[in-house]
Amino acid sequence: MSLWMASSNLDNAASLLHHGGELIGIVAFAASGALLSVRRNLDIVGIVLLAAATALGGGIIRDVIIGKTPPTAFTNLWLVAAAVGTALVIFVWQPPARLTRWPLDVTDAVGLGLFAVTGTVTAYDYGLAAPSAAMLGLTTAIGGGIIRDVLSGTVPAVLRSNEHLYAIPSLAGAAVTAVLLHLDVYRPWVGLLCAGSVTVVRIASLRYGWHGPRPWYTKRERPEES
Amino acid sequence: MSLWMASSNLDNAASLLHHGGELIGIVAFAASGALLSVRRNLDIVGIVLLAAATALGGGIIRDVIIGKTPPTAFTNLWLVAAAVGTALVIFVWQPPARLTRWPLDVTDAVGLGLFAVTGTVTAYDYGLAAPSAAMLGLTTAIGGGIIRDVLSGTVPAVLRSNEHLYAIPSLAGAAVTAVLLHLDVYRPWVGLLCAGSVTVVRIASLRYGWHGPRPWYTKRERPEES
Amino acid sequence: MSLWMASSNLDNAASLLHHGGELIGIVAFAASGALLSVRRNLDIVGIVLLAAATALGGGIIRDVIIGKTPPTAFTNLWLVAAAVGTALVIFVWQPPARLTRWPLDVTDAVGLGLFAVTGTVTAYDYGLAAPSAAMLGLTTAIGGGIIRDVLSGTVPAVLRSNEHLYAIPSLAGAAVTAVLLHLDVYRPWVGLLCAGSVTVVRIASLRYGWHGPRPWYTKRERPEES
Repeated sequence: MSLWMASSNLDNAASLLHHGGELIGIVAFAASGALLSVRRNLDIVGIVLLAAATALGGGIIRDVIIGKTPPTAFTNLWLVAAAVGTALVIFVWQPPARLTRWPLDVTDAVGLGLFAVTGTVTAYDYGLAAPSAAMLGLTTAIGGGIIRDVLSGTVPAVLRSNEHLYAIPSLAGAAVTAVLLHLDVYRPWVGLLCAGSVTVVRIASLRYGWHGPRPWYTKRERPEES
Repeated sequence: MSLWMASSNLDNAASLLHHGGELIGIVAFAASGALLSVRRNLDIVGIVLLAAATALGGGIIRDVIIGKTPPTAFTNLWLVAAAVGTALVIFVWQPPARLTRWPLDVTDAVGLGLFAVTGTVTAYDYGLAAPSAAMLGLTTAIGGGIIRDVLSGTVPAVLRSNEHLYAIPSLAGAAVTAVLLHLDVYRPWVGLLCAGSVTVVRIASLRYGWHGPRPWYTKRERPEES
Repeated sequence: MSLWMASSNLDNAASLLHHGGELIGIVAFAASGALLSVRRNLDIVGIVLLAAATALGGGIIRDVIIGKTPPTAFTNLWLVAAAVGTALVIFVWQPPARLTRWPLDVTDAVGLGLFAVTGTVTAYDYGLAAPSAAMLGLTTAIGGGIIRDVLSGTVPAVLRSNEHLYAIPSLAGAAVTAVLLHLDVYRPWVGLLCAGSVTVVRIASLRYGWHGPRPWYTKRERPEES
């Protein structure tokens, strides 16, 4: 943290805001993992584990990659508590199947935006160059969801042929954050703005069916063993 | 190791016991990976690789997370030899398909118990706090099996809706170990007792169909793309 | 790098050759990932991400395991550019489905050979013992392909029951490289020779249907949940 405080001229409020964002992102991703578990009819252990893996996985990968070991997720028990608590709330509430669809998309989108920004800030403040920090922001943002999908036996959303904008807004948010940090004009409220935009674009892409460009070769083969 | 010797007031016998447990856990998990490979009709390479990934994967993840690089699995060739040797024995013995079912469950349960304890001890003695050590014990215990299942294209046992107690006994064993270490009253034979209990509970849960609580929403949907 | 220069008595040309090999391996693996994405009909994001994960994944795992953080793939933007550029070329060229089959095998085989050698050299020059370096060479070589296959929802090629020689030639190439390094007689052209041999053996095994020995238990069960 000291490094973070040092490199970006922000006060405690900023730091709080940054960690608030990270915490909200963890809650959002934990909810997405827990909702998916409920849809998969997993028991409480599966719900807690998948929620924790989704919420903390991206940050753990980021910390391991930048060499910040042990990762915050294993040292700051508040983060773990947030993930597990969210999972337990959803377990107790037990949303009906239909309610596990759009809230899953929304919570996932919120986490996507917040982690793209906080992941970039964390990596940059740990001393990485702006481009590397942006790549790590993207990794943090999509890492948890990829772990969630791989563990639950589905192709990661970001790699599905029918997928909408997911990595693009997230990378854009991370890149903008990295540039702002590099120019030393990053401010937490700008970061939250970035995160919000990513979330909005992601949800809009789901709502309006936006897609990334795709090779114009139309015949859809069923996935086959490579 | 020196660190381990230093921080926990145990003699060489204890150290031997600790490493004996780790070695047995590696053999057990390697057997579970090899048996699964035989059932999948993989060739010798697949058997050896899946056995090694199952037996060493959890420890590698633990070491990478606590920052102990390169992981013991890459520096202590005895561990690799144990995993590969076990795989070769099973390859030569070539158990019939029906024999690959319950031995797989038993070996997996033995590895689960031993790694929950040794993983916690390793992390704690590397300097992590007791709660973090317990989490890493759980990670070590279930990591190898998760890698085995993901690599062989099945949803990890711990995340299957029909799964029995798996993570719960393992986490309990890790937690007890962590508490004992924290109170500085951990003794190797207690550790082995912990490991044994985890194994027994796991096998009993398979035998008697114990489950963790599950959202009372009965209709089972087939897993669908999230 | 300085370490690398120091520990292996090679001149700049050698270093260039080494990095040239690594770069070509990245392009080859990126192509294999991109071709698979095209076959899966992914959009441009999926193509770029899968190509990057395939091309850089093995090296990232290797660097994280040997403790070289942040991994070269996150600091040397040329490597990222090579992977992304390759993906974009294939996206623009948009090869028809039938063209995604054998080029995928060939590019994968080229990357397999080059990474087995460069991965071993990198690990050895980072200070690991020869056997560990060979294991890391294997990890680097098969890691990217495993990530590619797991992310795209197929069982990794190396663990498929109908798979041809894949890990064996790669491990052999890594082992020979490690021995040469240990004897301090490693020369880049020998390394390229190693890599080439691995590639040739791999392709020949596909062409002539070579298999590793397999338990003579013939009945093929369909993969079932373990």
